[in-house]
Amino acid sequence: MPQLRQDLITGRWVAVATERARRPDSFSQAAKEAVAARDVCPFCPGHESMTPPEVLAYRAPGSAPDSEGWWIRVVPNLYAAFRIEPDGQEHREGRFWQRDAIGACEVLISSPDHRAPTPLLPRRQVEAIVQSYVDRYRDHARNPALEQVLILYNHGRPAGASLEHPHSQLYAIGLQPPNLVDEIAGATRFSEANQACVFCRTLEEERRAGARIVFENDGFVVFAPYAARTPFETWIMPRRHAASFGDLDSASEKGAFAEALQLTLKALRDGLNDPPFNYFIHSAPLKAAVSDSYHWHLELIPKLSSAAGFELGTGMWINVVKPEDSAAFLRERIEKEVAQAAASAP
Amino acid sequence: MPQLRQDLITGRWVAVATERARRPDSFSQAAKEAVAARDVCPFCPGHESMTPPEVLAYRAPGSAPDSEGWWIRVVPNLYAAFRIEPDGQEHREGRFWQRDAIGACEVLISSPDHRAPTPLLPRRQVEAIVQSYVDRYRDHARNPALEQVLILYNHGRPAGASLEHPHSQLYAIGLQPPNLVDEIAGATRFSEANQACVFCRTLEEERRAGARIVFENDGFVVFAPYAARTPFETWIMPRRHAASFGDLDSASEKGAFAEALQLTLKALRDGLNDPPFNYFIHSAPLKAAVSDSYHWHLELIPKLSSAAGFELGTGMWINVVKPEDSAAFLRERIEKEVAQAAASAP
Repeated sequence: MPQLRQDLITGRWVAVATERARRPDSFSQAAKEAVAARDVCPFCPGHESMTPPEVLAYRAPGSAPDSEGWWIRVVPNLYAAFRIEPDGQEHREGRFWQRDAIGACEVLISSPDHRAPTPLLPRRQVEAIVQSYVDRYRDHARNPALEQVLILYNHGRPAGASLEHPHSQLYAIGLQPPNLVDEIAGATRFSEANQACVFCRTLEEERRAGARIVFENDGFVVFAPYAARTPFETWIMPRRHAASFGDLDSASEKGAFAEALQLTLKALRDGLNDPPFNYFIHSAPLKAAVSDSYHWHLELIPKLSSAAGFELGTGMWINVVKPEDSAAFLRERIEKEVAQAAASAP
Repeated sequence: MPQLRQDLITGRWVAVATERARRPDSFSQAAKEAVAARDVCPFCPGHESMTPPEVLAYRAPGSAPDSEGWWIRVVPNLYAAFRIEPDGQEHREGRFWQRDAIGACEVLISSPDHRAPTPLLPRRQVEAIVQSYVDRYRDHARNPALEQVLILYNHGRPAGASLEHPHSQLYAIGLQPPNLVDEIAGATRFSEANQACVFCRTLEEERRAGARIVFENDGFVVFAPYAARTPFETWIMPRRHAASFGDLDSASEKGAFAEALQLTLKALRDGLNDPPFNYFIHSAPLKAAVSDSYHWHLELIPKLSSAAGFELGTGMWINVVKPEDSAAFLRERIEKEVAQAAASAP
């Protein structure tokens, strides 16, 4: 009998249709849709003039802005769907209403290497990526015109990547998006009823159950959510309660977050032959008092099927793989990876 | 400056990013991803034994059930994500909760012709499709275990179609899906504040503005919504206020609905070289008293881009074409089509 599972945070229901179940490794990518190659990559070293001026770079001492010598570079998105505009306008047409899309869109280039996605970078470079996330998050969090900062990564053409050179994106926007509204409403309800954080409670339950845990280190737990929306949906959550991603402690948490992220992406890449995916970081709204009830985290959603009429019409998801099976598949790969790394250490 | 537009019904915001704008005809489909061809199509005449027994067929007098001779045939979906189960169970695991996915999934075969999508069928066959929707809707609406009946169509592999032979699908489910919950909440708010139906009011505003109207006949208005989520999103709405699709009047509305649907799908097919799309019919929940505030309609969403990290992370859409431009493009094609049909009439 197919099942409905309820997400503890938002209350949303997901259909887990075991009748359509496939073995986890049947999702391995055979044919690939390539991201269009360009003659000249605007994100490669030496092409700095092809982008707007950088807003942040980690670069060799003495090197000039917008020149070579960087290992992380952040630039405004040329095709911005949101713009900082001090004097936002609105327009009414009968009962219809539109207003300026206030915000900022940035591109965070992962490294100078056009061909190296996160799993293939040195761990130190992944830590630099995380640091660039934190630095840009904190910078936008100070802007009183903004409500939410979302950092995300699109990998592969079917997941919306339009340029090959690995990069993350940042959207700092002047409204509270519906998915965050739902999470915050659910977290507030839970907190009022139980005097506890629903995310902390989820971590407790997941660690007790064990079956959906993918990886743990001192700072983070990687797991498949109980009501996972897609095969291999995976969350990375800090053990320490903190509402805002801007509160990430660089000294004690950056390395652990980079490790959890890189091992998860590597297991996905190796296990399923480099599938397309999206991840994004959900963090507390900039202006709401939710420090007790909200808890930042990263959500990773592989793109292994298309939303069709049912999903678009209902807003519900049908997941054809049990999250317990997805988790076991990734956990096994990470255990091997960690054992190999330990064996080859000097 | 990019704009945010608010949907009058749900209150959701859509970003209309003119910076990324493309000309409507640039969405014309060049390369196509084919739906996997099968040696033997289970929906073709003569293969009736490959499906579960039919639950409805319009067929030649004297022909036996599950044999040839039908022009419309409806069968249970072999891969059902929901099942009718008189004694639904639930299961709790700590704070996590799952229950049986109660419901019915059916396939409504459009015609005996494997190669004829809706735009290429005789108008009378499109009317028969509409009649099969109404008949199956009404049958499930009587089941007290169900909350919602959704009828939908997936066209093309990227839109989730897995079999070539044109067919619609029906999901009759035992819970209220979130997109309907949002529409109903918005419609109820509007009705309480304005003593009016927000959908009727939308039709008035759209007809007054004109710029987003695609087609009108005696019974229906076809238009691009003010806060369209995607290029070429198009709605078909009855002029007569009726909450439930089951209230469609076969004598006075069936022909007009079939005409509006077929002309819209033909304009999309001819104008954009047969793009993938999904459509679904939103109808009142079976058990809520919303007959004054809700108003059934069809939503058509072409699949011309992928949801990426921004859409998944926020639940917001970025539309790169103004709905006024999408509407003008389709309107022009339908005007030509109607003029040609009139000229060639005897």
